[in-house]
Amino acid sequence: MKKGNPFGTHRVIEPKGVLPQPAIKIDNNMEIYDNEILINVQTLNVDSASFTQISDQAGGDVEKIKEIMKGIVAERGKHQNPVTGSGGMLIGTIEQIGTALEGKTDLKVGDKIATLVSLSLTPLVIEEILDVRKEIDQVDIKGKAILFESGIYAKLPSDIPENLALSVLDVAGAPAQTVKLVKEGDTVLVLGAAGKSGILCLYEAKKLVGPTGKVICMAHRESSLDKVRALGLADVYIAGDATNAIEVYEKVMEVTDGKLCDLVISCVSRPNCEMSAILATKDDGTVYYFSMATSFTKAALGAEGVGKDVNMIIGNGYTKGHADTALQIMRESKALSDLYTKLYA
Amino acid sequence: MKKGNPFGTHRVIEPKGVLPQPAIKIDNNMEIYDNEILINVQTLNVDSASFTQISDQAGGDVEKIKEIMKGIVAERGKHQNPVTGSGGMLIGTIEQIGTALEGKTDLKVGDKIATLVSLSLTPLVIEEILDVRKEIDQVDIKGKAILFESGIYAKLPSDIPENLALSVLDVAGAPAQTVKLVKEGDTVLVLGAAGKSGILCLYEAKKLVGPTGKVICMAHRESSLDKVRALGLADVYIAGDATNAIEVYEKVMEVTDGKLCDLVISCVSRPNCEMSAILATKDDGTVYYFSMATSFTKAALGAEGVGKDVNMIIGNGYTKGHADTALQIMRESKALSDLYTKLYA
Repeated sequence: MKKGNPFGTHRVIEPKGVLPQPAIKIDNNMEIYDNEILINVQTLNVDSASFTQISDQAGGDVEKIKEIMKGIVAERGKHQNPVTGSGGMLIGTIEQIGTALEGKTDLKVGDKIATLVSLSLTPLVIEEILDVRKEIDQVDIKGKAILFESGIYAKLPSDIPENLALSVLDVAGAPAQTVKLVKEGDTVLVLGAAGKSGILCLYEAKKLVGPTGKVICMAHRESSLDKVRALGLADVYIAGDATNAIEVYEKVMEVTDGKLCDLVISCVSRPNCEMSAILATKDDGTVYYFSMATSFTKAALGAEGVGKDVNMIIGNGYTKGHADTALQIMRESKALSDLYTKLYA
Repeated sequence: MKKGNPFGTHRVIEPKGVLPQPAIKIDNNMEIYDNEILINVQTLNVDSASFTQISDQAGGDVEKIKEIMKGIVAERGKHQNPVTGSGGMLIGTIEQIGTALEGKTDLKVGDKIATLVSLSLTPLVIEEILDVRKEIDQVDIKGKAILFESGIYAKLPSDIPENLALSVLDVAGAPAQTVKLVKEGDTVLVLGAAGKSGILCLYEAKKLVGPTGKVICMAHRESSLDKVRALGLADVYIAGDATNAIEVYEKVMEVTDGKLCDLVISCVSRPNCEMSAILATKDDGTVYYFSMATSFTKAALGAEGVGKDVNMIIGNGYTKGHADTALQIMRESKALSDLYTKLYA
């Protein structure tokens, strides 16, 4: 076997010198290098922003969706949406393990895993698209993929249904980062709290703030709030438009007696929500941006523009133990497990 | 006087409901609201990315630069470059203070200040452009501007020349955040370390890491490194291309005995430097992005793509005491003061 680079740079075709994620085209030849893992793919969980774009472009037509998806992979060697830049993840079965990884990996041939690195950097071949589940952005295929040595993954648990695990793992970074950031007694606001990542953040925040803390759930529509209210995941529920910073600020001032929040987690998958999060945060507080629709410059110049000394964090999709944290929620809470099964699995 | 909103939303013309910074057009009528401050403007320090774009568009012609700048302000009511989205800052003299601010501000009529909020949200009128100093992005004008109640500023010190103070205050957030992040014994890498913000970061990092720490200075050209080397601001000097993540990773591995860095500060004002910073950081280390050329998605997906558990921070241009921290460097170090006077004042 040929020797590979841990980050997969040996697969980059264009432009030379970059990593697989920013590359325009990577090599998806399925003969593995010595530090790669070959996966027999079962299901792609396409990133929500990406799937929405593809589905819109196809006018909702399933055959056209298939055609667009196959076209992307044929052109780039990976399923990276050229409009949104994003990917998704996959589940499949280990088919072959590179010789250099022997004794270094806990995986063996036949294990079923979910890859936790983005499809936007994963070498992929689609032979056939078997089924498109439009409501949950999942696509069953016949095909193969490569996991690089630095690529992260989770073995699928035997006690959680596969599609549920896949949906939850897709946003695993959010609840795990919440655990790292929330302290007892904190006032925590989650924007976009009724979505797939937002609900998991609420769950962890509610556990950690304790009786002296306060968790505020904000979503666009009253009907979305009802869904969360039924689960008792927050202390306060607010409906409002997260792109309207002044409205959010005034509502949060009201429910915090003018004190604002120690931590604001932004999970809204629409643009222009940076300022709402900043204005709702106390001086010296923290804003955690998990949404991929966040603009770096809008956040940086926005905080300066209103003289807010807040710590702003870029949502890293990975943190140690994030897969376990997310799956554990499904074990702990039957109510959440039922809801996620209904909505996303 | 009419009552104003602390964030200046009363000045927003289009689109309605947003803050002055993201607004396309704001009201630059110079009759002040009760919580505003009127400034007689002397000099604009245009943001470096913005000035480069304007100068390029004008083919370097000073009269055309003037025309473009006046056009921007006429159209938007503020000097926000429509291509880069960025602004800059200004110095001027207080001409009038709104009645609602009496007893609430330490400013008085006649004080000379630098505004520390971006020009991209500051109501501005340019009557005449008196001088364009192309080498340092500074433009002397006859005109007026408005500071909002939430707007931050610094009184110009009497012991530092005005143009030097203006240049240093422009990047004041960077050294102040460095002070907050560096711990004794840390290994710190500054990317783009020979630039205006990078050198100030090096200076603070070198003071704080102590004899057990290590400060690594990286810049594109050997000639840039020489400038910093002469000042003794780092322990290790590396020339390299910050857009080539693998090259940066290998060089940093070498000079840190394979341990990588506790903190990486990215001050490179070109795109595609996110991955260099991520790969050069230890697991559990911190990346501080000060450059406005940073892409949120490239950082977020990039860290996940290589399975790096790093804390990534969006460079907030403001933190408490940042103006004092930056000006103090000019008082402490004659060598830096001389260099900044030569290059930027």
